[in-house]
Amino acid sequence: MTVARPDEVRRFNRSSLLRLLHTGGPATRAALATELGLNRSTIKMLVDGLAETGLVEEKVPRLARGAGRPSLLVLPQPLAAVVLAVDVQVERAGIALVGFGGQILGRNSWNLHGRQRNPHEVITHVAESASLLAADLGVSPVAAGISVPGVVRRSDGHVHTAANLEWDEVALGSRMGAVLDLPVVVGNDAEFGALAELVRGSGRGASDAVFVSADVGVGGGLIAQGALLRGSAGYLGEIGHMTVHPGGRTCHCGNIGCWETEVGEAALCRALGLPEHGPRGTIVAELRALQGDYGTLLDDYLDWLTLGLVNVVNILGPELVVLGDLFTALPETAITRVADQVRSRSMVSRAMGGIRIEKSSLGTDLKLLGAAEAAFEGILPIL
Amino acid sequence: MTVARPDEVRRFNRSSLLRLLHTGGPATRAALATELGLNRSTIKMLVDGLAETGLVEEKVPRLARGAGRPSLLVLPQPLAAVVLAVDVQVERAGIALVGFGGQILGRNSWNLHGRQRNPHEVITHVAESASLLAADLGVSPVAAGISVPGVVRRSDGHVHTAANLEWDEVALGSRMGAVLDLPVVVGNDAEFGALAELVRGSGRGASDAVFVSADVGVGGGLIAQGALLRGSAGYLGEIGHMTVHPGGRTCHCGNIGCWETEVGEAALCRALGLPEHGPRGTIVAELRALQGDYGTLLDDYLDWLTLGLVNVVNILGPELVVLGDLFTALPETAITRVADQVRSRSMVSRAMGGIRIEKSSLGTDLKLLGAAEAAFEGILPIL
Repeated sequence: MTVARPDEVRRFNRSSLLRLLHTGGPATRAALATELGLNRSTIKMLVDGLAETGLVEEKVPRLARGAGRPSLLVLPQPLAAVVLAVDVQVERAGIALVGFGGQILGRNSWNLHGRQRNPHEVITHVAESASLLAADLGVSPVAAGISVPGVVRRSDGHVHTAANLEWDEVALGSRMGAVLDLPVVVGNDAEFGALAELVRGSGRGASDAVFVSADVGVGGGLIAQGALLRGSAGYLGEIGHMTVHPGGRTCHCGNIGCWETEVGEAALCRALGLPEHGPRGTIVAELRALQGDYGTLLDDYLDWLTLGLVNVVNILGPELVVLGDLFTALPETAITRVADQVRSRSMVSRAMGGIRIEKSSLGTDLKLLGAAEAAFEGILPIL
Repeated sequence: MTVARPDEVRRFNRSSLLRLLHTGGPATRAALATELGLNRSTIKMLVDGLAETGLVEEKVPRLARGAGRPSLLVLPQPLAAVVLAVDVQVERAGIALVGFGGQILGRNSWNLHGRQRNPHEVITHVAESASLLAADLGVSPVAAGISVPGVVRRSDGHVHTAANLEWDEVALGSRMGAVLDLPVVVGNDAEFGALAELVRGSGRGASDAVFVSADVGVGGGLIAQGALLRGSAGYLGEIGHMTVHPGGRTCHCGNIGCWETEVGEAALCRALGLPEHGPRGTIVAELRALQGDYGTLLDDYLDWLTLGLVNVVNILGPELVVLGDLFTALPETAITRVADQVRSRSMVSRAMGGIRIEKSSLGTDLKLLGAAEAAFEGILPIL
């Protein structure tokens, strides 16, 4: 940036206002003006502009307090800008159409087994399903965000590898973009999980946070100074492949003792005495049944979880760690025990007087919401 | 930021120009204008302003090429803004006065043993030494940066702990500020090492990089998207306390198997068959004597170094890893071996087609330069 011209300033303010409405929801003109540091006439001009294009509606608030004319309530209109969110998991794929303001307007999902996991099949099925859903809802998405459990280059959505899907060098961004005829952003699932937490979950307002999730693999998304870290060349870090157990199990990445081998789905199955690669539902049901009463069953598992989290906290110094996916099915007492140990064993947490460690509250929509946010990031400035 | 007023724009441009001259050195008006995207008249006005206050001088370049009037060369004037840089190490403390443009104008250092390591002694000695040096050079520093091997809160320079100095809860920022009567910024030594590499070393122009250094302890500074990560509450991460060896040695932090216990100074002494806590000179001399011919002597040490670096690379996805301090004394062939293994074992490096791993080239001035940059960061916008 150098000298800001008036039209640049207007565009910047308009895009800040859109972002605020999208993430914060309905607000009065007065509150929006305060938040953005703009005066009454500027906010009026901007809101009028958004109302003209149908992005917002203005209403008199029902409960107007105090004397004088009440400030008009500005409501984002979900149908005015819709994005397609896609969540490709190892055993399941889902799509959703998400409106301006973050509301899920409709969704669909299906199982992935055998050859359905093949990139071509996934791309075709996503496109068909998205087209049907859009027709049903009578909307047209203007961009798409796609979450993949793999190593993804953000610049063009190239999937270097997604081991648990058995994908290798898939040009997912360009192929999906061509089929959908939309701008597409592809990201790692844990990265998008972190983005969802940052915009809509427990990470709201956090400056530095880490999102760690266990599925078949273990991934992490890192938030520093309020923004998602992207890593060099757009490759997000692979927290699950931190070595925690030299001399431990061989990981699919070729190394030994990766964190993923000790706290991923298979490790949880071993701890619970279930066959590895069993259905997800069984694992979750088994964990739910444990609540509170699990003796020493999870001791080793929780120790490895603690060890990895201590490392992450020591390296990044976050104020918040959010645990997602399978971790959210762990008993509350187990989470408390891990959190206490991480706080007492991590030098950085001790220096900070403790950090927050909690389960994700966004449930199974987490990655869809993150993929939608990634898509909105690209379009909000040009709406 | 909302609407930029003309004086804010001017201040922003002035501060960008100062930063460019400070980090990039002398440049022609034309080059500065291009770099900052400003037109001729704006750059003239800004440079004239800096010349009036003595921050720059303008000269006709000696080798003017092409036809027409040559663009004037703008030279930062080192004496126009001087900062005090302080590097507190475990066995030694050093100070330097550093001028605008990054030139070291003068320096002094002394050994720290026994009670000289006591915070009060260090503070007093730094203040006396700084005052003598400033008088010698006929300059007055306008700010100070202080590097400490400990867990430091950036907001106020509070040292939570500096285990190897045996410091505990030292209000270094406020105490040093009071004694020096200057604005003071205190930071972790590895963080300042990373800052120096970012501004003046191999990290120049890097988007994402990691600086790892071994002294008595092991520390790291992380650069993401071209800026230094600070961690929440200003506590930088403690990379040396990543657990790499469960069941290994007990660390002074209370955990077992921290990376520091396997690749810090003591571990290097053990690998070389030297007594732990021996003089630094002996260790370096011993390492230098090895060059190229060390058989299996360093095998274990290098394996732990590799393991920790694989973790760091997998988590952060940097394009560059810079090794500092004791690591720079390792034989070239050892560095090459570690670098090759990190590249082949790290998933993220493989995805990126390899990353740069190299020794710091800034030598023993590294932390002084970083401390100076931290001080300049605060004053450049208000010069």
